[in-house]
Amino acid sequence: MITTNKTAGFVIIGDEILSGRTKDANVNALAVRLTGVGITLAEVRIIADDEAAIVATVNALRKTYDYVFTSGGIGPTHDDITCDCVALAFGLTVNYHPVAYKRLGDYYEKRDMPFTDARKRMARTPQGAELIDNIISVAPGFVIENVYVMAGVPKIFRAMLDEVIPTLHHGAILHSISINTDLGEGTISDPLGKIVAENPDVIIGSYPKFDLQPDKKTIKAQVCLVIRCTDTAKAETVAQSVIKMLDDLGGVSEIL
Amino acid sequence: MITTNKTAGFVIIGDEILSGRTKDANVNALAVRLTGVGITLAEVRIIADDEAAIVATVNALRKTYDYVFTSGGIGPTHDDITCDCVALAFGLTVNYHPVAYKRLGDYYEKRDMPFTDARKRMARTPQGAELIDNIISVAPGFVIENVYVMAGVPKIFRAMLDEVIPTLHHGAILHSISINTDLGEGTISDPLGKIVAENPDVIIGSYPKFDLQPDKKTIKAQVCLVIRCTDTAKAETVAQSVIKMLDDLGGVSEIL
Repeated sequence: MITTNKTAGFVIIGDEILSGRTKDANVNALAVRLTGVGITLAEVRIIADDEAAIVATVNALRKTYDYVFTSGGIGPTHDDITCDCVALAFGLTVNYHPVAYKRLGDYYEKRDMPFTDARKRMARTPQGAELIDNIISVAPGFVIENVYVMAGVPKIFRAMLDEVIPTLHHGAILHSISINTDLGEGTISDPLGKIVAENPDVIIGSYPKFDLQPDKKTIKAQVCLVIRCTDTAKAETVAQSVIKMLDDLGGVSEIL
Repeated sequence: MITTNKTAGFVIIGDEILSGRTKDANVNALAVRLTGVGITLAEVRIIADDEAAIVATVNALRKTYDYVFTSGGIGPTHDDITCDCVALAFGLTVNYHPVAYKRLGDYYEKRDMPFTDARKRMARTPQGAELIDNIISVAPGFVIENVYVMAGVPKIFRAMLDEVIPTLHHGAILHSISINTDLGEGTISDPLGKIVAENPDVIIGSYPKFDLQPDKKTIKAQVCLVIRCTDTAKAETVAQSVIKMLDDLGGVSEIL
């Protein structure tokens, strides 16, 4: 973990993910975007649409990490309780946000649809929150202090993320070099351990992969070694040491 | 949340998921299997390959939920620290498990591969742990009290799950009925809220979906309403109320 980097936590509010009905797509979207700007995603929690769980989780993470992102529970229905729970976590009241209220009112008026109480719910934010624009379906997310409350629907989540990412103060970007090898983890782990010990400021991960081959019978085992460092030159030096080590062991290696 | 059901927490130990390099596939696999046997997956945490984080998370969840599952970090390399961290969480020493040691020793002997110290690491468990068989690549997982330590590679994780699921004491099975409608959440949420209020023992979820149509230009908005209850007859009665409500609003509904 690069401790000089800013850190983030992610709270997914999602009964539908915990029940297995829906597959999450937002963890990877957030992880890739944060890594790209040098922010370390340190923890993800997937919790139920439950007031006590949401309040406790938001409060735990906002005190631990520089940024907290939430996804889910900001629509118009009875099970959309994220706004109220985030307000409760901060001890704030919830009001209609005038800009959100006008945007949603205009949106429904243009479509000749009634601006019902349920739809008005989507204009509510904790007092003092700033809006996160929703270019897809108007209903905004919001930011309160270091907590970014966003939609759960993956394409809206990603659109909101595109609004938010450029506003974050980010750390050093982590350079990453991936090397595939046909040697097994058991073969490489001792010499790899030496390289790890010699380079405490470099993160070296070892990820086994098992790919079923086109004959549908054989499984090809590979290991992907990922070298991560904020210093590009250092990452490359260590990558060269790893490749030499793999060569010495008689393996075939490939930089991805 | 059906409080009479057994509950579970899931800890994913995975730098590679937090960095965005790998997409998680294990949350959905576990969620579907637990829901199928009436165990409520109440929380998932994805954390870094970091001793303090693993120990704190395992300890927090094992005291909160009936079962805790972990995935990741049980291979032979330097970054596979799950076994030691789980032992630390329980205050136990780590030893070679004689059965695991023999299985792995035999496996490498048959393949004429050296049984290195790195490979021997995979035979280690906290004192008193029982093994979880690994039919794919031999190296076992283990159970200690209510904590099930399993592999991160999805196909091995699923194979271990197949070993573990029949051994769990499970609760009442949750029956689930899904209804698609072309009405928006804003239209249905007030009358749906009444049905929710009248049926406190039924879980009713509302999940918007936006599907890009074959013309690649229009997006079809749908809402999927999911009625969940341990009592099948009750779930069906509530589903009928929901369908009637959707009909009354002039919507098209479809039971999935």
